[in-house]
Amino acid sequence: MSTRWGILATGGIAHAFARDLALLPDAELVAVGSRTQATAEAFGEEFAIPHRHGSYQALVEDPDVDAVYVSTPHPGHHDAALMAIAAGKAVLVEKPFAMDAAEAREMVDAARAAGTLLVEAMWTRFLPHIARIREILAAGTLGEIVYLTAEHGQWFANDPQFRLFAPSLGGGALLDLGIYPVSFAHFVLGTPAKITAVSRAAFTGVDATTSMILQYGSGAQAILTTSLAAASANPAAIYGTEARLEIDGWFYTPTTFRVVSRDGTVLERYDVPHEGHGLRHEAAEVGRCLQAGLTESPLLPLEETLAIMGTLDEVRRQIGLDYSALAP
Amino acid sequence: MSTRWGILATGGIAHAFARDLALLPDAELVAVGSRTQATAEAFGEEFAIPHRHGSYQALVEDPDVDAVYVSTPHPGHHDAALMAIAAGKAVLVEKPFAMDAAEAREMVDAARAAGTLLVEAMWTRFLPHIARIREILAAGTLGEIVYLTAEHGQWFANDPQFRLFAPSLGGGALLDLGIYPVSFAHFVLGTPAKITAVSRAAFTGVDATTSMILQYGSGAQAILTTSLAAASANPAAIYGTEARLEIDGWFYTPTTFRVVSRDGTVLERYDVPHEGHGLRHEAAEVGRCLQAGLTESPLLPLEETLAIMGTLDEVRRQIGLDYSALAP
Repeated sequence: MSTRWGILATGGIAHAFARDLALLPDAELVAVGSRTQATAEAFGEEFAIPHRHGSYQALVEDPDVDAVYVSTPHPGHHDAALMAIAAGKAVLVEKPFAMDAAEAREMVDAARAAGTLLVEAMWTRFLPHIARIREILAAGTLGEIVYLTAEHGQWFANDPQFRLFAPSLGGGALLDLGIYPVSFAHFVLGTPAKITAVSRAAFTGVDATTSMILQYGSGAQAILTTSLAAASANPAAIYGTEARLEIDGWFYTPTTFRVVSRDGTVLERYDVPHEGHGLRHEAAEVGRCLQAGLTESPLLPLEETLAIMGTLDEVRRQIGLDYSALAP
Repeated sequence: MSTRWGILATGGIAHAFARDLALLPDAELVAVGSRTQATAEAFGEEFAIPHRHGSYQALVEDPDVDAVYVSTPHPGHHDAALMAIAAGKAVLVEKPFAMDAAEAREMVDAARAAGTLLVEAMWTRFLPHIARIREILAAGTLGEIVYLTAEHGQWFANDPQFRLFAPSLGGGALLDLGIYPVSFAHFVLGTPAKITAVSRAAFTGVDATTSMILQYGSGAQAILTTSLAAASANPAAIYGTEARLEIDGWFYTPTTFRVVSRDGTVLERYDVPHEGHGLRHEAAEVGRCLQAGLTESPLLPLEETLAIMGTLDEVRRQIGLDYSALAP
């Protein structure tokens, strides 16, 4: 059975999602909702979407929609997700899942009360190379994990109009770019026992470059950096007592990796070709969960989404990133 | 004029230095000194060294020696260097230069009072690829430096007899392996304004894995990790607003690098072949300094050596690595 999708908000990531959804056999893009009818019509025209709604409310109430993809700027995730949950829809919410753990908890509670499917749109988690890495970690090939590194740096010109610099849109490197290394650390090592974070602010007060060291009960460390001021190759690596796993940049997109034993022997090369952007795998996961009658994805459980938001909250507390105190 | 070398102590690094010195045209290995005549004879036999001394004192007093290479375990550097300085020799002291900044300051003060040449044997600093990186940094090709990363991880079996695990020999990852990323950060960004460090201890109490974030007055950050529990590819990278410089592992040995602009264009590939281990370049620098009548190397000034020791001291303070409190 095909999953019928409605897209809520029509920004850049919504375009990428719509394009990638076209590569998925068991999905149909049936509806789009925007705050104005004009933008809904334009987006609908571009992707040949039959239902074009001039409000988010009309979209979530569309009876032909099974699953809603929430792709507003971060501060809009909470209200849009609650609206879709109240309408009984399955919801895929862009990352960061919410502005803080308190918002995220409300969303999770609402979905559980309603018995509806809720998934964080951390698309990396559902990519083929990550699926293989999950198996390698489970097999213990790396030995005891000693530390991991992950980076996400992109360069953006200083522009107060651009989302990433705008405090009112939840701007800054951490929530937009840093979510990838933070989520990767949670994927590999779970919830940290201790967090240490430092940051440099951009000209609008949001964080420009943030570095984090997460420490775990096992003794492992995760060393993470994110920046909106420099273009990184965006690699990641996991170092164990037996072997390391080196993920080529950009680690969080469809990519290649190697497993190298501590004596330098290459134990595995993962270089499977990949078509498209990779966003369709999260949509496919929503389809699988709906088919199976699940209310969360076993590949990214809601408790993990909440833990990731908790890590982001603690990093923000340590680096003093308080959106309510910043100019809009 | 050829520099006549005497090697003080006959461990693993002394062997590597002796082998590499043979590739240097303007250097002669004329003497070796050990705590016993037997080990001096064995080392002298292996490298065909004419003068073989059964004490460090006899070595530093050898009138045919111009420069002494101090390669004892770290806790011996201070006394051996002072002994060689008192004998009027130029001294090349293995890294870490001393056990702490106070020891290092005494050594520097003594050399300045005596007017003798003193150089920290951070051989990386004198390698050809680092010389080219120095030029690239000076030219401003990378733009403003936003952050850098550097790692040094090697795996060693838990062995209380091995130097790296022995508190009495200044063991642990930081002083032995971490000195490379720390020195690299000083090379690129200077003395940090703030240091944040966390660590996990090995079974003997020395540090097994230590991660550091250094923050600079410019706003830049250096994110550094060292471990004796996992084998890294040991890469390093410098990220600027205009371009990044990616150094292939092992970054601190003769290796290759690329400069990549923020749009992904490769601006420069450094892949000059290199012969030998690379230790001879520090010896060549000592020869150049002696020829020029210098008392320190402009490529690694003594104030920088002292600053590096200060960084190591602060990291040790934060991670609670107190050798005097650990069992021998």
